[in-house]
Amino acid sequence: MQTPNSEEPPESGGRGDEFALIERLRDRFESAGGPSIHPGDLWIGDDAAAVTLPHVGRVVLATDLVVDGVHVDAALCEPEDIGWKALMVTVSDLGAMGADVSFALLSVAAPVGFAIERLGAGVAEAAAIVGCAVVGGDLSASPVLVVSVTAVGSVPDDGHALLRRDGARAGDHLFVTGPLGGSSAGLRLLRGGDSGDSGVVQSELAAAYRRPMARMVEGSVARRAGATACIDISDGLLADLVHVAEASGVGLELEAGESVVVAGATRHEALAGGEEYELVLATPDPDGLVEAFRAAGLRPPLAIGRCTGEDGVYSLDGGPLPEGGWRHQF
Amino acid sequence: MQTPNSEEPPESGGRGDEFALIERLRDRFESAGGPSIHPGDLWIGDDAAAVTLPHVGRVVLATDLVVDGVHVDAALCEPEDIGWKALMVTVSDLGAMGADVSFALLSVAAPVGFAIERLGAGVAEAAAIVGCAVVGGDLSASPVLVVSVTAVGSVPDDGHALLRRDGARAGDHLFVTGPLGGSSAGLRLLRGGDSGDSGVVQSELAAAYRRPMARMVEGSVARRAGATACIDISDGLLADLVHVAEASGVGLELEAGESVVVAGATRHEALAGGEEYELVLATPDPDGLVEAFRAAGLRPPLAIGRCTGEDGVYSLDGGPLPEGGWRHQF
Repeated sequence: MQTPNSEEPPESGGRGDEFALIERLRDRFESAGGPSIHPGDLWIGDDAAAVTLPHVGRVVLATDLVVDGVHVDAALCEPEDIGWKALMVTVSDLGAMGADVSFALLSVAAPVGFAIERLGAGVAEAAAIVGCAVVGGDLSASPVLVVSVTAVGSVPDDGHALLRRDGARAGDHLFVTGPLGGSSAGLRLLRGGDSGDSGVVQSELAAAYRRPMARMVEGSVARRAGATACIDISDGLLADLVHVAEASGVGLELEAGESVVVAGATRHEALAGGEEYELVLATPDPDGLVEAFRAAGLRPPLAIGRCTGEDGVYSLDGGPLPEGGWRHQF
Repeated sequence: MQTPNSEEPPESGGRGDEFALIERLRDRFESAGGPSIHPGDLWIGDDAAAVTLPHVGRVVLATDLVVDGVHVDAALCEPEDIGWKALMVTVSDLGAMGADVSFALLSVAAPVGFAIERLGAGVAEAAAIVGCAVVGGDLSASPVLVVSVTAVGSVPDDGHALLRRDGARAGDHLFVTGPLGGSSAGLRLLRGGDSGDSGVVQSELAAAYRRPMARMVEGSVARRAGATACIDISDGLLADLVHVAEASGVGLELEAGESVVVAGATRHEALAGGEEYELVLATPDPDGLVEAFRAAGLRPPLAIGRCTGEDGVYSLDGGPLPEGGWRHQF
């Protein structure tokens, strides 16, 4: 089970309760049995599952919910935007493993009169961009809009393993694939927040909120360039870095300069804002990663610090990580 | 996109509007591109999709929604029952293709305080029975309970093609894998309907509503025994037979004796009640099918008539099919 994106926990308490619930569900599902786990398979616990299908081979699977009022505000975007976002946030989980996506399934539970076809058009637009086909789904009436997308992909047999969140090692350099804060800043502006930004900047921020882009090519290039760990930023840069550090058993020495803050966003939005979908990468070979991105025609990744051997010790720009202040609070 | 199970259409109008919407979505998704379609692949339009994953092979995919107030009434069943049902109705789509299921993904959007862990226990219980593993998912807060399950499976390379709904031919014999009406009768009883039935019958009917069983072995045996078409009964026996007939371009001469009515259900519940998940099968070799079921230790399938060459002409017990009266109206 991936890290849930919901800002509100589905059961009482905070995110800690939610992660504990996921742990208990994982234990229950793992003890229930099923096909054999093959070496290199991943069940619940990373961005996506990588499992070996009998008679076939290794498939990579991820699913995400988009709920009106939790992950999107249907009053602030078009049905096409919601469809786009639901597809992109799900395939992003495969991108964060360095996997390719081939197919998606779309389920929509929607109030009577909701423009499902327009939502479908946004899904189709996003699917075309990442090169996947929508091959099934389900529709239902519902008092609230809930969109569920499942992505199905694979990893080319090229000798490079899937990128996991638990692979970072002490000494690894950390990168992010692009500047951050656009999604949170866009939401702030769309909600009527004050801004001295130009119209161009405002429209770019709104687009960052409404039309996030999954970094499929970046994940694939990083996997082939020897990256050791990767995660997509759904909970916020610092929160997701801590997820990598906790899974990998390393510490973090972070340096987040102005280059990681997108124009028009605040520093807090860049460090703590969720729903970004840029990738965080760890690698022992920073020059190799930068060169691989350059060779692929990608924007250069931004350096944001190092992994240390001090498990659980995190610092930001020489000081301690703000206690709880890096949680997604927008 | 499978036939949706929702009783209420998500957009204005009736089921016809819903099917038309699915057609339009299918056109849009197919024109959006994606990986190549291989011979024998199935995209939207049957119970499940069968698609060829690059570098891997053919996978079979299905997804279903269970929405409180639409597919289940959370006041009439336990959270475990809802989880069970969500898993079973989804894997049933693979069973109806004669495919095996290996993996499932579970997403739950639930009101604060809903017992997600108990729902997960029901999912795990059902998954263990059909031999699949739950390997991922997502959780979110939501004002209404929406459960989405995706099933991932495959077909052994045994020379027998997947069972589709469009493969029935004139002269084929029709069967159903078990007596029907239990789910609808169970719902009627749970809602306080009058009944002169014994406690044993009542509890069996309640179980038929709360804990439907996917007919995975039956689908697989039928596929290997040369069945030409198959569908699971989610909309009701007569409605789903018409789906097969329309897809296959055949007529129907149906004979539904008392053997197709489960003890305690009405004849209308057996013919029109949805959410049953027994399989309807077509075969040119009825003796072979019955013998294959016997050899596999399965309950013998029940004969319910023949396919004819008169496309679109349907009869029941010598008279016309009741106009609209076979739609699911419970």
